[in-house]
Amino acid sequence: MSDMVHDDVPTTRTGRNSRRGGGAEARRARRQSGGSAHLRYITRNIPLYEVLSEEGLAIIERNADTLLEEIGIEFRDDEEALALWREAGAEVDGTRVRFPRGLVRELLKTAPAEFIQHARNPERSVQIGGKATVFAPVYGPPFVRNLDEGRRYARLEDFQNFVKLAYTAPAIHHSGGTVCEPVDVPVAKRHLDMVYSHVRYSDKPFMGSVTHPDRAADSVAMAKLVFGDQFVDSNCVLINLINVNSPMVFDATMVGALKVYARAGQACVVSPFILSGAMSPVTVAGTLTQILAEASVGMAFAQLCRPGAPVVFGTFASSISMQSGAPTFGTPEPSLVLYGAAQLARRLGVPFRSGGSLCASKVPDAQAAHESTQTLIPTLYAGVNFALHSAGWLEGGLVSSYEKFVMDCDQLAMMQRFAEGVDLSENGQAMDAIGEVGPGSHYLGCAHTQANFETAFYRSTIADNNSFEQWLADGSQDAVQRANTLYKRWLADYEAPALDPAVDEALQDFIARKKAVLPDGIE
Amino acid sequence: MSDMVHDDVPTTRTGRNSRRGGGAEARRARRQSGGSAHLRYITRNIPLYEVLSEEGLAIIERNADTLLEEIGIEFRDDEEALALWREAGAEVDGTRVRFPRGLVRELLKTAPAEFIQHARNPERSVQIGGKATVFAPVYGPPFVRNLDEGRRYARLEDFQNFVKLAYTAPAIHHSGGTVCEPVDVPVAKRHLDMVYSHVRYSDKPFMGSVTHPDRAADSVAMAKLVFGDQFVDSNCVLINLINVNSPMVFDATMVGALKVYARAGQACVVSPFILSGAMSPVTVAGTLTQILAEASVGMAFAQLCRPGAPVVFGTFASSISMQSGAPTFGTPEPSLVLYGAAQLARRLGVPFRSGGSLCASKVPDAQAAHESTQTLIPTLYAGVNFALHSAGWLEGGLVSSYEKFVMDCDQLAMMQRFAEGVDLSENGQAMDAIGEVGPGSHYLGCAHTQANFETAFYRSTIADNNSFEQWLADGSQDAVQRANTLYKRWLADYEAPALDPAVDEALQDFIARKKAVLPDGIE
Repeated sequence: MSDMVHDDVPTTRTGRNSRRGGGAEARRARRQSGGSAHLRYITRNIPLYEVLSEEGLAIIERNADTLLEEIGIEFRDDEEALALWREAGAEVDGTRVRFPRGLVRELLKTAPAEFIQHARNPERSVQIGGKATVFAPVYGPPFVRNLDEGRRYARLEDFQNFVKLAYTAPAIHHSGGTVCEPVDVPVAKRHLDMVYSHVRYSDKPFMGSVTHPDRAADSVAMAKLVFGDQFVDSNCVLINLINVNSPMVFDATMVGALKVYARAGQACVVSPFILSGAMSPVTVAGTLTQILAEASVGMAFAQLCRPGAPVVFGTFASSISMQSGAPTFGTPEPSLVLYGAAQLARRLGVPFRSGGSLCASKVPDAQAAHESTQTLIPTLYAGVNFALHSAGWLEGGLVSSYEKFVMDCDQLAMMQRFAEGVDLSENGQAMDAIGEVGPGSHYLGCAHTQANFETAFYRSTIADNNSFEQWLADGSQDAVQRANTLYKRWLADYEAPALDPAVDEALQDFIARKKAVLPDGIE
Repeated sequence: MSDMVHDDVPTTRTGRNSRRGGGAEARRARRQSGGSAHLRYITRNIPLYEVLSEEGLAIIERNADTLLEEIGIEFRDDEEALALWREAGAEVDGTRVRFPRGLVRELLKTAPAEFIQHARNPERSVQIGGKATVFAPVYGPPFVRNLDEGRRYARLEDFQNFVKLAYTAPAIHHSGGTVCEPVDVPVAKRHLDMVYSHVRYSDKPFMGSVTHPDRAADSVAMAKLVFGDQFVDSNCVLINLINVNSPMVFDATMVGALKVYARAGQACVVSPFILSGAMSPVTVAGTLTQILAEASVGMAFAQLCRPGAPVVFGTFASSISMQSGAPTFGTPEPSLVLYGAAQLARRLGVPFRSGGSLCASKVPDAQAAHESTQTLIPTLYAGVNFALHSAGWLEGGLVSSYEKFVMDCDQLAMMQRFAEGVDLSENGQAMDAIGEVGPGSHYLGCAHTQANFETAFYRSTIADNNSFEQWLADGSQDAVQRANTLYKRWLADYEAPALDPAVDEALQDFIARKKAVLPDGIE
């Protein structure tokens, strides 16, 4: 593991740098990951797919306005939030807040349509919004799974491993947040090790803690040690996941974290967490109505805390089995919700978060792959801007899977290639190749094929395309077995990006001081 | 197995009958197949996804015209074909045919934009073209695979099994053609047993033989025994797969079969068979140019044989590994080709065939599922009208897999549900549910949920959504193991649709007379 020291605190802040990781690092990444260096976030050169007409969008918007006006949203255990809403012109009745038609949309006018989330390596900064799609790893699982050990509780070492895998994966643009829950670390101290691991083992952008307002404040403080106080105050360096307790409730924990981040100028993804049939109606249009109302209110509240605070319209929406009540993934109805919610976010003029590689399967089998791809393709085509859970998600989000992580990364890289669209250049048209080869021959050795040999087709890191006989000779491995080999190779080949030792020391010092006073409980 | 006799020779011929299979049969199908009766072909209520601009389409059309004018297409070993082209105004030089710009497009004006392929049960007739998508099973594999036996050569019994599975599957709308090669039957006699099996074990539409003009003629003759001479002459009852020997060659076998079918008024799917990098240039635009040229010429040739003959713009296009030359599936470039070719077919005003559930994997694992879904979703979104290989395809088309067949059927049914789009009715808007439930409660027992309980969400036949503990208690099965159980249940519960005994006798008599004179070689 190399610990080369150089000054890599960002000096350019635009995030628009189009160079890909250069030189030795790029070659190393290419070697490690089957052909490609770190990829910049996706800039879509393909059209959007939309399932709702203007009429459909207008119906849902009207219904959401009715919900907000007549039913309203609860803000529980937070007097300050209620006061802010009263001041803004909403009708507050106990913890229930009702909104005159159009108020929420009006407040959202100060929300930026897109923004840059800065990474400590400026080449890894990402655009959130517009034509950009950013893939981030799974968030939240208390368990991990691999072929060797099966399923067990996650530890800090696993957390660091997933950060390293996300750093290695060319088409993961973001280090994410709780890539798994390090349950061997006390609950009140966990966020410190998580934020530190993202900084120490990656140079991609990352997420802050949302489980307590104090932990959100610690995340901001640590970000300031990396990026500098002034830079953090005027730029987004943290993106944070604020779940709504659907239906129609914001609780004090999430509102508390949202206030900290919004006031610090950091991004909040306001995500109704919905399993249709339980937390929302069983229909697509009904679910979209509730999502629009909930997400809009959360994003508008961020604007009350600090006008101009970066926000993202979030949606985590799947269904339940009406037979067992269990969550299901990769089915048609959540895909329609995903497409519809993306349209509603564009209509509001804010970035959108949803999708990923979701599945209910317990193991990385065909079910896992079917469900994940049935979520991932809509993620890209819908124009999702920030795609959490893009890699590693297993068993309804209870498990971070090592093998599925690298399988998903292969699919992400394919999606990134697809998003480049069709090359219509002269080389792309290939008329010289057609002329050279002619009827009844083949293109294998022609000049055009030779010239485009290296980049012509996406080369999978997981798929076995060999003959049956060769596959037998290679041990008849299925995709999971090959993925097991691949993730271990990625970890073995991992080299940490350089980190300014002064920054490292400041972070470790901050953590030590905090840990000395925080409680040790693991609940 | 029931052999109830009733007159089920079709009496209405429109194929527009919107009733679904009624009564006992429907209930049986619903029971057998996890909740749904036979589904009518898909009528898309969702938008198309398109990757090429008008400018891109014009470039490709211009380049295809140049290819046809300057390079031309080979028609080998068929003097009649060359004479027909000469007469139509093409320039014939040996076996090479060159086409004045616009000639081919002009000839295609007699091709129908859509047509009905009739089934012997009129409720199973399908529309080919327009907003319709028809799913048909895998075509061509010489091997079969299942968990119990592994991989082995296919037999007639397997062929019949796959016909039965396709009959049972709600979202398979078509019985297909060579669902596997019954290699235990002599090559020259095989087509007779195949056509008979489709008629005997299913009442869905099916395909004719294309491996020799005589076998095509036998297929037409057998269809006439089922549907009547006159009906067959004026209606499509067979759809047939005519592959182009890409690049730019039509061989005598395929042209011979095409002539038989086109003159009999039966449908020809003209399909360039392309692995980019071998049979076409390594680029998407170059491949599309060649596909457009080849498919157009084949369809125009059918119009020379019989103006108005139903034709389908076919495309089988994938890529090869530039490292090993092996075919690859589910990668981004073939998806772009699929979307582009669908646009080119619409531009010509003819139906389109492509896609399916293609994969290179040797087993029905995550690789198989990733690759298949990466082909199937584009199949639906591109607006493919006839989707061969929708179920059962494994190992690059060398294997018909029992387990993958039922897995794929689950995915097809999901696609069919997705294609219904978003319900914006009052029930779909669900404002009463939102009003009834309100903040902080749940929708599980509300009146709207109760009213929509049965149909709210697609219910997978393969996925396990239970808790980890329940899944362990159920034996920790993966998707393949569950699929193994399911396909066996489908076969055990299979009941043959009724067949007029006079028709059956006539078919058996025809087959016996033919078999008596055909050779016995198995090559």
